[in-house]
Amino acid sequence: MNTFGNLFRLTTFGESHGPAIGGVVDGCPPGIDLDTAFIQAELDRRRPGQSRLTTARKEGDRVEILSGVFEGKTTGTPIGFIVRNENQHSGDYDDLRDIFRPSHADYTYYFKYGIRDHRGGGRSSARETISRVVGGAIAKLCLRQLGIDVKAWTQQVGDIACERDYTKLDLSLIESNDVRCPDPAVTRQMEDLILQVKGEGDTIGGIIAGVITGCPVGLGEPVFGKLHAQLGAAMLSINAVKGFDYGDGFDGVTQRGSEQNDRPLSMTSDKRGASFSTNHSGGIQGGISNGQPIPFRVAFKPVATLLRPQQTIDIHGNPVTINPRGRHDPCVLPRAVPIVEAMAAMTILDAWLIQSKGEDSPPALAIIRGRLSPQPSQ
Amino acid sequence: MNTFGNLFRLTTFGESHGPAIGGVVDGCPPGIDLDTAFIQAELDRRRPGQSRLTTARKEGDRVEILSGVFEGKTTGTPIGFIVRNENQHSGDYDDLRDIFRPSHADYTYYFKYGIRDHRGGGRSSARETISRVVGGAIAKLCLRQLGIDVKAWTQQVGDIACERDYTKLDLSLIESNDVRCPDPAVTRQMEDLILQVKGEGDTIGGIIAGVITGCPVGLGEPVFGKLHAQLGAAMLSINAVKGFDYGDGFDGVTQRGSEQNDRPLSMTSDKRGASFSTNHSGGIQGGISNGQPIPFRVAFKPVATLLRPQQTIDIHGNPVTINPRGRHDPCVLPRAVPIVEAMAAMTILDAWLIQSKGEDSPPALAIIRGRLSPQPSQ
Amino acid sequence: MNTFGNLFRLTTFGESHGPAIGGVVDGCPPGIDLDTAFIQAELDRRRPGQSRLTTARKEGDRVEILSGVFEGKTTGTPIGFIVRNENQHSGDYDDLRDIFRPSHADYTYYFKYGIRDHRGGGRSSARETISRVVGGAIAKLCLRQLGIDVKAWTQQVGDIACERDYTKLDLSLIESNDVRCPDPAVTRQMEDLILQVKGEGDTIGGIIAGVITGCPVGLGEPVFGKLHAQLGAAMLSINAVKGFDYGDGFDGVTQRGSEQNDRPLSMTSDKRGASFSTNHSGGIQGGISNGQPIPFRVAFKPVATLLRPQQTIDIHGNPVTINPRGRHDPCVLPRAVPIVEAMAAMTILDAWLIQSKGEDSPPALAIIRGRLSPQPSQ
Amino acid sequence: MNTFGNLFRLTTFGESHGPAIGGVVDGCPPGIDLDTAFIQAELDRRRPGQSRLTTARKEGDRVEILSGVFEGKTTGTPIGFIVRNENQHSGDYDDLRDIFRPSHADYTYYFKYGIRDHRGGGRSSARETISRVVGGAIAKLCLRQLGIDVKAWTQQVGDIACERDYTKLDLSLIESNDVRCPDPAVTRQMEDLILQVKGEGDTIGGIIAGVITGCPVGLGEPVFGKLHAQLGAAMLSINAVKGFDYGDGFDGVTQRGSEQNDRPLSMTSDKRGASFSTNHSGGIQGGISNGQPIPFRVAFKPVATLLRPQQTIDIHGNPVTINPRGRHDPCVLPRAVPIVEAMAAMTILDAWLIQSKGEDSPPALAIIRGRLSPQPSQ
Repeated sequence: MNTFGNLFRLTTFGESHGPAIGGVVDGCPPGIDLDTAFIQAELDRRRPGQSRLTTARKEGDRVEILSGVFEGKTTGTPIGFIVRNENQHSGDYDDLRDIFRPSHADYTYYFKYGIRDHRGGGRSSARETISRVVGGAIAKLCLRQLGIDVKAWTQQVGDIACERDYTKLDLSLIESNDVRCPDPAVTRQMEDLILQVKGEGDTIGGIIAGVITGCPVGLGEPVFGKLHAQLGAAMLSINAVKGFDYGDGFDGVTQRGSEQNDRPLSMTSDKRGASFSTNHSGGIQGGISNGQPIPFRVAFKPVATLLRPQQTIDIHGNPVTINPRGRHDPCVLPRAVPIVEAMAAMTILDAWLIQSKGEDSPPALAIIRGRLSPQPSQ
Repeated sequence: MNTFGNLFRLTTFGESHGPAIGGVVDGCPPGIDLDTAFIQAELDRRRPGQSRLTTARKEGDRVEILSGVFEGKTTGTPIGFIVRNENQHSGDYDDLRDIFRPSHADYTYYFKYGIRDHRGGGRSSARETISRVVGGAIAKLCLRQLGIDVKAWTQQVGDIACERDYTKLDLSLIESNDVRCPDPAVTRQMEDLILQVKGEGDTIGGIIAGVITGCPVGLGEPVFGKLHAQLGAAMLSINAVKGFDYGDGFDGVTQRGSEQNDRPLSMTSDKRGASFSTNHSGGIQGGISNGQPIPFRVAFKPVATLLRPQQTIDIHGNPVTINPRGRHDPCVLPRAVPIVEAMAAMTILDAWLIQSKGEDSPPALAIIRGRLSPQPSQ
Repeated sequence: MNTFGNLFRLTTFGESHGPAIGGVVDGCPPGIDLDTAFIQAELDRRRPGQSRLTTARKEGDRVEILSGVFEGKTTGTPIGFIVRNENQHSGDYDDLRDIFRPSHADYTYYFKYGIRDHRGGGRSSARETISRVVGGAIAKLCLRQLGIDVKAWTQQVGDIACERDYTKLDLSLIESNDVRCPDPAVTRQMEDLILQVKGEGDTIGGIIAGVITGCPVGLGEPVFGKLHAQLGAAMLSINAVKGFDYGDGFDGVTQRGSEQNDRPLSMTSDKRGASFSTNHSGGIQGGISNGQPIPFRVAFKPVATLLRPQQTIDIHGNPVTINPRGRHDPCVLPRAVPIVEAMAAMTILDAWLIQSKGEDSPPALAIIRGRLSPQPSQ
Repeated sequence: MNTFGNLFRLTTFGESHGPAIGGVVDGCPPGIDLDTAFIQAELDRRRPGQSRLTTARKEGDRVEILSGVFEGKTTGTPIGFIVRNENQHSGDYDDLRDIFRPSHADYTYYFKYGIRDHRGGGRSSARETISRVVGGAIAKLCLRQLGIDVKAWTQQVGDIACERDYTKLDLSLIESNDVRCPDPAVTRQMEDLILQVKGEGDTIGGIIAGVITGCPVGLGEPVFGKLHAQLGAAMLSINAVKGFDYGDGFDGVTQRGSEQNDRPLSMTSDKRGASFSTNHSGGIQGGISNGQPIPFRVAFKPVATLLRPQQTIDIHGNPVTINPRGRHDPCVLPRAVPIVEAMAAMTILDAWLIQSKGEDSPPALAIIRGRLSPQPSQ
């Protein structure tokens, strides 16, 4: 149940205040250059303490790869990895041992398991997403060979929203600011709002948008495993996510079919796909990718941990007031951007591997194979 | 890939114009009265031709149970079932054999499989959901023993929305009108809009809302298998669904943590759970049910089939104009309500079975066991 | 749990005395000619009443394909099928309703489920294997395109064994006799023994041998999913099977490494594989096929149903004597041969589909693709 | 594919000469005392260099638990662990980089992946079984609470076999000798044979027997997931295993049903099961445990690595002679005993967890629950 994916699978483990966070990537194709600097850079995008918008905690979060690589290339065997926990202030949590913090997983873990590691949220801590970012980075290294790209950005913080139509945005600006928003018109406002909320010991929600480009026709399974159902489940599995839509999504429900139908216009010269009049469908029809970009949105609630007093109860039902110390994010979105990308990347690679079974290789695959050394059939 | 669920599993088969639609329910607990009249009644809620709001097609859609039942009770072995297709006008589709209808799955199936049954959408037809309704009805019969209830309704059609807060609605009114909306203030408007759109040969989208009540604490898995991730994937796997949220969902992103945190107030007398100040979380925290109701929303796009001319291309890339005959729904929502319920019911029962493994039995389970005859240990 | 396989998956349902036996094949590649005459012929090899060596029950066992086929070709969507039960003498079993027959599944089903369909063994009846033969026949149709062949035969009945080294046998003789043994030297003795045992109201066990030829290098997963582990599990899931080995198997344990090592001799001209000095390994090394034939053996116990009085107890613990009427097989092996082949065929095709993911297509695959019409990229 | 089990799942990673071997146990029940001394003791039983019968390699093989434990008890979250590789003589393998060793996985890995870590067998090394022993030790800690015990021993080495009927053996003697055989009559002979073979630079095969006792009625799934099919697959997944049988197994095929049927004699006083006349079935009927002991046998081929010259070819097809240095086991059986136990323990616990879903708790479960602290409902 701590495993994600079918043919490309990530299994994760680790608690916030245990010795390490880690995981196993199973099913990675052989012959991929495992660029550890890239994996670490992805982790750094998620790391706490990277800007004044995030928690002040400093954690190195250095990944150690333990298997599955030989002379820098993946071998097709499972890739085990760990990230040691550091800079834990477990003592910060002593007061919370028997207390259910409002809107945290304390209460539900307690009743599900009868026992819980209360320190820093234990397994329910967002530190668990470290493993997702590592798995996602490995998936991105594979997707790069296939010409598939995944990008995500902060689209809305509280009620401050950026341009909705991603084709009007310059996505190269995402990393140019601390909030990871590509729309210069609202970046400053978003940052100001987060700092204001932080100053009040409060938190704020928002929306992360993303788009998958370069995806070939044919990914996804037509019934229960629709590509957007897999993508939605991936996003909804991220801490604090409350909603998912794609294409015209919730906004499109007021429209008519005649407004929303995407008409194929002509086949491409290599007959490998068609151009379309519009992309209201969001790149997926009948659960299967149609070769157009796949835009989607992910709704995040405000973080539950407040740096202000709150009423709650302990495990005996006694009322208590908590006033957490500790270092927390006033808004998770800037750090959640790489997590959203990681989950999207793993979802798409998994669908690609399933689809490519028993099928002629698309050209990009030859690139992967071409990197193999030595060649079986040379 | 045509299988849904883990311990309670539905595998489906069947095309719109083949001999039959059917499926296999595996993992149903033994000793449940398999009320076939109830299963048929659920199918009748989904049946075409049930009101002037839906397609005029008449199909009996009679289910035949083929296994897994002995003297009226489930035996724990797989329940096979079929629904014969009738009233097929396959000839209506002859013109479409080599054509990609706009925003249908024609194009994606063609490129994924290289071959497709074009008649009535084949496997991508909404007739596939017949099997879901049968599986969901069986799940509901189990959930009834556990005191868990699932209800869904039409919450919005186009831009006409009913009361958003379900606690202010009388859900017993859902079946009192053709559109399946429990808010008398807007029912007539919704029906009028659907008829107007139908008259124009066009279609319209909307939102179905639902709520799960009576769900015990502890269902769902904390990381990738979060209860709402499973529920979201279930909903997103339904034809024409573009979005999912739960609790405060997309609307909650503008709020602060101090507004949205749900505070536990006191333990219940049997210490099996707590009461809460509010339910912004939507009955799930950290991916695990907390015993409160689970409200959710599902966004449907307008149906792609229009009864008016549209430009498109054929498989050779030649432009063509289609002007479908046939009988189609101007708005899927009224008939999709039982499908949403079915997917929710199967999701919750599956999570319940996983959670109850190796755990003390909740009281409701004794009811299931009490119905067994003969008793192993009598 | 009633599903077999990963990418090529068979889900089965049905009891001996219910309306029908059936199943769903999910993951069959598109574009395969679904030769229903061949599928029926395979079923006929398993059918009761085909010779004096088997039960006298007559059942037509006609398969009806319900989906997944369009104009004679598979479409990649699930293939549903049913075989109606006929010629049921349910009354033969009335006396056995509350009785545990020795060495049957009556006792274990009763304690596992608390309820059971006692008629003819219900789900534990060998009629369940009908679905396996259908699934296996579909797999064989796919394997035929890939040049992979699966053959099984009766290798031993009681203590009468045929030539052990399959390379010395003429496998075209398997179907030439009722016992399905390719060794003319012992066929008559085997038949005589079965008839003698039948005359005594008793039953007898034996061994079925099989060999998979034409299997390419690279099938199977190296750790838990070793190809022979999958094959062994497939065989051990057949009713009455008590053991499995492959290559030199149990007989090889007395040998030394220097006697048993298979030495590669030279690469083939196309460098797609090597020739080997010997095949003690049985075509699999490290869990992965090496391109050589895969011989294996399956041990069957004598059938538990005797046509003579036996002491046992009822569900209340009271001693009773049973003296079954009914029509039963004195030896399951002749009818089990196609079942063994079916399970082997599904195992190999599943492994082939998993292996071919993301890989260059072997030449045989082009044949499958070449049959697709129309071509996506024509 | 590097994951074993359904509800109790072990995912493993690691190569012989990489930084570490490790794994993740997912689905372990909460509240179990995780006795790390016991886990290490189990690893020590599998460690190289423990006696003169095994390889002279010395490896500490110290396990480090990274997650899933809080104050000494399991929490229900995944248990990550690693064992660092030490004492690697990678240089011993330089000559083998481009060579296919006879009957090793070199050849099949090369053609499956196009790349391989040749050092010490890489992923195909028996060091991979370290992770299995850790997973099995955790499973044993759970089974102990349930009163279920798993024992295995060396039953045959070459042609020297111990008493076959385990009820006539004193299983407490297993650990009293280096070969792990409980029959004093043959222990010395087995040891002498192994030393003789070792002296010749050769290797020898054998049989490990095992028995599971205390298993309740009802474990296993009736069709594809028969308990013995799961057990067989588990055993066949161990390096060098060529065969599996249980109950009377291959020896029973010569018998008649009248000799082999196990008759239930009377119900136990608590009506939770029956006593039987015999146990030819081996504790499983219809794929489901019947409460009797489950005896089984596992055939091991001789190890492929010989310390004497052998002819083979390299990846270019050129003939070469290899004469391995390195330190290897002349007979894997003594060290494989804990591996067989580990796989059996995980198989049974997994089946127990699946069976206990939605069922009344057996008494032993109350013990597990009783250890939980604090109690949710106190």
